Amino acid sequence: MLETSSVGAVVPQTAHFDSAIVLASGAQIAQYDLVYETYGELNPACSNAVLVCHALSGNHHVAGYYAGQEESGWWDNMVGPGKPIDTRRFFVIGVNNLGGCHGSTGPASIDPASGKPFGAGFPLMTVEDWVETQARLAQRFGITQFAAIIGGSLGGMQALQWSISRPEQVRHVIAIAAAPKLTAQNIAFNDVARQAILTDPDFHGGNFCAQDAVPRRGLRLARMLGHITYLSDDSMAEKFGRGLRSGAYSFGYDVEFEIESYLRYQGDKFAASFDANTYLLMTKALDYFDPARAYNGNLSAAFRGARAKYLVLAFTSDWRFSPGRSRDIVKALLDNELDVSFAQITSNHGHDSFLMEDEHYHDLLRAYMNNIEI
Amino acid sequence: MLETSSVGAVVPQTAHFDSAIVLASGAQIAQYDLVYETYGELNPACSNAVLVCHALSGNHHVAGYYAGQEESGWWDNMVGPGKPIDTRRFFVIGVNNLGGCHGSTGPASIDPASGKPFGAGFPLMTVEDWVETQARLAQRFGITQFAAIIGGSLGGMQALQWSISRPEQVRHVIAIAAAPKLTAQNIAFNDVARQAILTDPDFHGGNFCAQDAVPRRGLRLARMLGHITYLSDDSMAEKFGRGLRSGAYSFGYDVEFEIESYLRYQGDKFAASFDANTYLLMTKALDYFDPARAYNGNLSAAFRGARAKYLVLAFTSDWRFSPGRSRDIVKALLDNELDVSFAQITSNHGHDSFLMEDEHYHDLLRAYMNNIEI
Repeated sequence: MLETSSVGAVVPQTAHFDSAIVLASGAQIAQYDLVYETYGELNPACSNAVLVCHALSGNHHVAGYYAGQEESGWWDNMVGPGKPIDTRRFFVIGVNNLGGCHGSTGPASIDPASGKPFGAGFPLMTVEDWVETQARLAQRFGITQFAAIIGGSLGGMQALQWSISRPEQVRHVIAIAAAPKLTAQNIAFNDVARQAILTDPDFHGGNFCAQDAVPRRGLRLARMLGHITYLSDDSMAEKFGRGLRSGAYSFGYDVEFEIESYLRYQGDKFAASFDANTYLLMTKALDYFDPARAYNGNLSAAFRGARAKYLVLAFTSDWRFSPGRSRDIVKALLDNELDVSFAQITSNHGHDSFLMEDEHYHDLLRAYMNNIEI
Repeated sequence: MLETSSVGAVVPQTAHFDSAIVLASGAQIAQYDLVYETYGELNPACSNAVLVCHALSGNHHVAGYYAGQEESGWWDNMVGPGKPIDTRRFFVIGVNNLGGCHGSTGPASIDPASGKPFGAGFPLMTVEDWVETQARLAQRFGITQFAAIIGGSLGGMQALQWSISRPEQVRHVIAIAAAPKLTAQNIAFNDVARQAILTDPDFHGGNFCAQDAVPRRGLRLARMLGHITYLSDDSMAEKFGRGLRSGAYSFGYDVEFEIESYLRYQGDKFAASFDANTYLLMTKALDYFDPARAYNGNLSAAFRGARAKYLVLAFTSDWRFSPGRSRDIVKALLDNELDVSFAQITSNHGHDSFLMEDEHYHDLLRAYMNNIEI
């Protein structure tokens, strides 16, 4: 039996940056905050740092808990003493992406220039932009090279981009349930979610904060739809099947099937806490991610300058970013004679598998992390 | 080369029914109209009748065209002289389902009792209810037994239900891209579509007609989402890929990718013409369809009284109702020693394949139809 424990109570920190950042879109942000958490101790050589990048609706609260609150960070099963990313050995950073809605400067923040929320005025972000901001945060710690950068889904894309944008600054990239670019179907789902938000009368062209409104209907629909793509057909069948709340058909439009109850609950919870403009820009960053684009669609060429070692993980039942998409990444890395480990993990939890505590998955990650020299 | 032609200009007919129908929900409709079209000639023995059942957004206009209009019926490639359902041999009926919005009595129709549109007062329908109304229409023609009943998707479910509800009244059932019941994932997609409509402020609890409003936003989202599930990942990739309308990222929320343009166009077109209450009740009829339910989930038991011969067709790239769902139907039929032909057709058009003109698919159907004795 492995002994694992929690990193315990944590307190988020804020780093303020007052030199402007020029984004891929050409837009600038004059000054901004990044909120982050750290777990473990940075060693004197600054060689044991691990950056955890978050996915669409994630944030900096990766592990541990806030005093007085029960809920743990979103990857608490992965990060902590004795856990696959062992905080007795590694210094782990979680950061809320610029444009987020959990403390880092984003659309809901006050624009110092106007004294009002940025709202629709907040610029769109790309994965490359996030790498730049994360690199600036690393500088604050004196970290010139990460031992590893790791993420699932959109987080995995950031990890991959690091090795392209800043090849000397990351030794290991761990990309889980990721893809080298979105398909038309992926973009289509994102666009339905965006249209749900954009056409919500409470969206007010993105300036809903100023109107004291919240586009809850749109956010709720976006989240309900997202959830379907995070789960597998099989896991939904297993968990909910055709179960009815009351045991009989009600011939009306109130909640009837268990799956409806689950989805609406998830949608409501999300709509009460997440910023609509952040959701929009996160989905756009997903759509835009396509490192091969600058190389006429040649993904191998995109990784030509990469120097990292890679672990690429995919899950059998993930139909959002299927294992084939991970194999596309592996192929491009091998074309460059890079050091790649790849595993396709049998799991019926769909895309969400990357968040789950699966023994095979965690053992693989633990073994990989343990082999990283620091 | 096969010579085929159009059934030519057609005119829809209306049958009025003034004896009440009691629905599966227990609700009654006192009187109603069914609008229908026919192609070919009913033979004196009334033994060459074919009923075509429509899917979620279909209607009675199966083949031919309306004078002065260019667009043909939704299955014009399938029904006509020399076509797989050959109108030189068969008398074909297309009928708009009760609850529809193309002429048959539905939520947008005027309730004679109140002089106002039914709106939210229109009862929910089931596949069994539609079989009952279609049987009443058949009586008007003196048809006591259909040579064949055919449909794709929800239409296929109606064809299957006929052989359960009225086993002596159908000789051949052709169920294409169908399923014996919806999965949790299927229901989940339907529920997101319904929630988009139900939470549209212009829905007014279903009584939007009385408010001179149309819940266009909700209908549009529902249709956009539906479209994703009708197409395959591959066909979307082939048709749209990551193509950009302007060739460059625009860093805004207007149409950017080709797939967005396509989906929004389809959504807008649909929202301008389809009734929201009809959409809701059609999706509910899909969710409710589950002939095994009355037999403790035993689908084979549901077909115990069936006497028809069956052709079951599925398409390889259909992920809405995958070939495995068709095999479930075939298995239940074989358990009852029924005569079943089954084919899994290679097609990359997803669920929509049943509407497409694919040579292998059409040849199969033509051969099957030609072998039906009349």
